[in-house]
Amino acid sequence: MKAVVPFKVVNAKSRLATLLTVEERARLARLMLDDIIGVLRQCGLNVVLLATAPFTYDAEVVVSDKDLNSALNELLKAEVEPVMIVMADVPLITPDNVRDILKSPSDLVIAPGRGGGTNIQYIKDPQRYHVDYYGASFLDHLRIAEDNGLTVEVFDSFNASSDIDEAQDLVELYIHGRGRAAEYLRSIAALDISKGRVRVVKDDYKVQEARVPWKYAATE
Amino acid sequence: MKAVVPFKVVNAKSRLATLLTVEERARLARLMLDDIIGVLRQCGLNVVLLATAPFTYDAEVVVSDKDLNSALNELLKAEVEPVMIVMADVPLITPDNVRDILKSPSDLVIAPGRGGGTNIQYIKDPQRYHVDYYGASFLDHLRIAEDNGLTVEVFDSFNASSDIDEAQDLVELYIHGRGRAAEYLRSIAALDISKGRVRVVKDDYKVQEARVPWKYAATE
Repeated sequence: MKAVVPFKVVNAKSRLATLLTVEERARLARLMLDDIIGVLRQCGLNVVLLATAPFTYDAEVVVSDKDLNSALNELLKAEVEPVMIVMADVPLITPDNVRDILKSPSDLVIAPGRGGGTNIQYIKDPQRYHVDYYGASFLDHLRIAEDNGLTVEVFDSFNASSDIDEAQDLVELYIHGRGRAAEYLRSIAALDISKGRVRVVKDDYKVQEARVPWKYAATE
Repeated sequence: MKAVVPFKVVNAKSRLATLLTVEERARLARLMLDDIIGVLRQCGLNVVLLATAPFTYDAEVVVSDKDLNSALNELLKAEVEPVMIVMADVPLITPDNVRDILKSPSDLVIAPGRGGGTNIQYIKDPQRYHVDYYGASFLDHLRIAEDNGLTVEVFDSFNASSDIDEAQDLVELYIHGRGRAAEYLRSIAALDISKGRVRVVKDDYKVQEARVPWKYAATE
């Protein structure tokens, strides 16, 4: 079964620019992608990378210069088998998460992202569905499913809901990540717990107090 | 078994002041509390409200003017049975979430909040544990468990991770909430999907497009 992962090749994760350089963002985006694809493959899925520009990667790569929705819907149109669509910025997902999604009897499994987004969709019959990302896409996807008479399971997972989009989101990756992206982030940044809200920062004060216990952070 | 819910009686949810009046915040805080306590009772838990000031509520109310950690640790010290501690601002939790937590064989079940926080803890032996909220409390709690030789399950739930603290968090309640707090929020505010990031606003433009499908929003 296919797992499609859309990936922005140039200037990925631009909203992390408040904290990370362009090289660091590229590296982090690539490592998140690696982590996610590793998890999907562990669960036996065939990964298709939907890239915005030519990209060398050890997977089937489909390059499209269309917008995300058109590109994905074109892919779905050509599929008769179930398809999972996974965003490239949800590095906390685990093989257990993916296996739980695969087990669902529903026609559509949808994992909400924060702020109304959609992070993972598992579409049993791509011929009876289309995607509509951006904005409150979670609500749009529920409606598309309803319009097509599909049963829906909302996948309740903190891991799947944590998309790394803005600097504040890096806290989740820093604290809860177990893959190479988290390892990299921890090597270039620190947790600032000195003020009310926990933040990821580039200097290293307070890093001692806020280090992640080894056992929890261990790469699986 | 006891479920302890700390509740700030005066000026609750002050960080929502950027959007809501003091009356609206009080009402919303109270309805979130009602929703959460309703869910806990559905699961057979005896609710203890740990209030910062005298408060009339149909439950056992313990009033303490101590800081949150001291007040909770004093309660834990007096307990020999398992205790669940649930924050009063996680209105998305469902009976299934609570039952899944209760099923865990681990000594400690901990549901992370966003940004390093701790939203739910289920403590099998209160004599071997203490709490340390604020800052990156999730990491502190992992360490306290480790220091006391406790096994830990991290409860992976979007519902449990969504604490309603700042105006941006209201999006989760607006979209995913099924209780009375969500119903109230939807009656006084709207979803703004006109710009990149989805927000809850007080005026009603775009509310048509962004309404929550009835079936998903239905109160259970």
